[in-house]
Amino acid sequence: MGDNIHTTLNVAVLGPLGTYTHEAAQSIFGSRVRYQYQRTITDVFDSFSGDIHVAVVPRENSLHGIVTETYDNLRSCNHGFITGEVVLKVQHCLVVRTGVALHDIKRVLSHEQALGQCQAFLKTYLPDAELVKTPSTASAARALLDEPSNCAAICSKSCASLFDGLEVLREGIQIEEANFTRFLILTKSREQSIRSQFGIDPCYKALLRIYANDEKAHNLTRIFDLLDTEMCLTQIDRRPKLNGAPFHDVYFAEVKKIDGTVDSQDEEYEWSAAVDKLVLSVGQAGYDAVALGIW
Amino acid sequence: MGDNIHTTLNVAVLGPLGTYTHEAAQSIFGSRVRYQYQRTITDVFDSFSGDIHVAVVPRENSLHGIVTETYDNLRSCNHGFITGEVVLKVQHCLVVRTGVALHDIKRVLSHEQALGQCQAFLKTYLPDAELVKTPSTASAARALLDEPSNCAAICSKSCASLFDGLEVLREGIQIEEANFTRFLILTKSREQSIRSQFGIDPCYKALLRIYANDEKAHNLTRIFDLLDTEMCLTQIDRRPKLNGAPFHDVYFAEVKKIDGTVDSQDEEYEWSAAVDKLVLSVGQAGYDAVALGIW
Repeated sequence: MGDNIHTTLNVAVLGPLGTYTHEAAQSIFGSRVRYQYQRTITDVFDSFSGDIHVAVVPRENSLHGIVTETYDNLRSCNHGFITGEVVLKVQHCLVVRTGVALHDIKRVLSHEQALGQCQAFLKTYLPDAELVKTPSTASAARALLDEPSNCAAICSKSCASLFDGLEVLREGIQIEEANFTRFLILTKSREQSIRSQFGIDPCYKALLRIYANDEKAHNLTRIFDLLDTEMCLTQIDRRPKLNGAPFHDVYFAEVKKIDGTVDSQDEEYEWSAAVDKLVLSVGQAGYDAVALGIW
Repeated sequence: MGDNIHTTLNVAVLGPLGTYTHEAAQSIFGSRVRYQYQRTITDVFDSFSGDIHVAVVPRENSLHGIVTETYDNLRSCNHGFITGEVVLKVQHCLVVRTGVALHDIKRVLSHEQALGQCQAFLKTYLPDAELVKTPSTASAARALLDEPSNCAAICSKSCASLFDGLEVLREGIQIEEANFTRFLILTKSREQSIRSQFGIDPCYKALLRIYANDEKAHNLTRIFDLLDTEMCLTQIDRRPKLNGAPFHDVYFAEVKKIDGTVDSQDEEYEWSAAVDKLVLSVGQAGYDAVALGIW
């Protein structure tokens, strides 16, 4: 199959042009696909339709933790299946309209994750600035052009260079130098594999969504007895379960194959079967369980 | 001991006057203590000093999940020991300066939790408004007096009534009618018990902070084998471990005594001993574990 087949693939990402999500997607798909920029992460999830078969969303950051908008969509969403991940090094810049100095800044615009990752810088250098949430870091940069000149945005250096009239005032303003964001690659359905097509390595991971509607909701211990000796629990996250009793939660459990490193079709098939078996036994134990992805 | 002894007790809460945290603290301590209002949740944690022996902080909300600033302080903080909890029903209002109409509003100020709990209302009725993070809901209300008239705040009805010139435009604007926030009561040290003094019931709960510095960081399964048959895991949360390798996490595990309902000194002592034993065995399994509270 030639390269031109990919240009018909539409990939939904958090827009506009210049977000970290776009950068992460480009590291996998390059210029061989057509990017469809969405305004919010929720819009990315909602965009799976006739034309859009693949989406990329931020999952978690090594400094500020999970991206709640992504998890809140995974909580209820029945669209998309996680089929891979990509990790991107993130270096935030403080960006202003050309000529604006640090002491002029009264408001800082960015995605809540970037505001969180840069909280120490903001507290030290801009303690009185208002912090304004925007749907993405790139939309913060773009908004500067229409805002009074006492505003700044937090975004990537390459994003700042996309807009005329902006300049980078400070680089690397996050809490620690080492700052990484993990993104998820989703396909419209579980059957639709794009891994071999784009050279995405298997990780031998899976993400399960688990909840209970009865008294078991407050006793998680039994879930962990169900993991077999071939797999380990690598992450667990909790979000409130909406439309239920207050303080009933949805859990997101990431499991990983122990020593799963070989890149073979057979191994991948076996891992997929092991995850399905786990989902079945968690279900038989009385929990509501579903695999949100196997990759 | 007479009531006047309590008036010397200083209780740190998120300020200014009128926050939900203040309301939660009042439901326990009434007017028998002196409240010390702090600007941010971090300031509340930092306030344990010679004069301040008790603090109240928000822990989680039934719609929007954990309060990250609280968990990020519990992640590193060695001050304070959780000695009780209180749950408050939360009803958010959209508040403006008298005479301002919904269509005038261009910016909405509040704590990030309140902005999250009201996201559906904001998306429907104020889709283009800027969302501005403030340290508390009450500081958002107070800020309205100094802001242009196109601003609104999200806070409680009673908070709005504290400031002249403000009016409630909409009531109950959170995602669902049933909305609760759970607060933690901390004392300066584990030894300092205030439960009997203020009639705080035991819950037979404990919160453990657990992390691993080696390859066990990515295999949590073993931790859950260590819980004895008398206790169950009721909640688990994850935050990034700072000053470590990226994507190494700190876990917060809440455990509860099965059938722990009796209000007796002996029961409480036994529960405390059982938690200490658990912390010891998690430590012996190679994890770094500490009890952040027993209540």
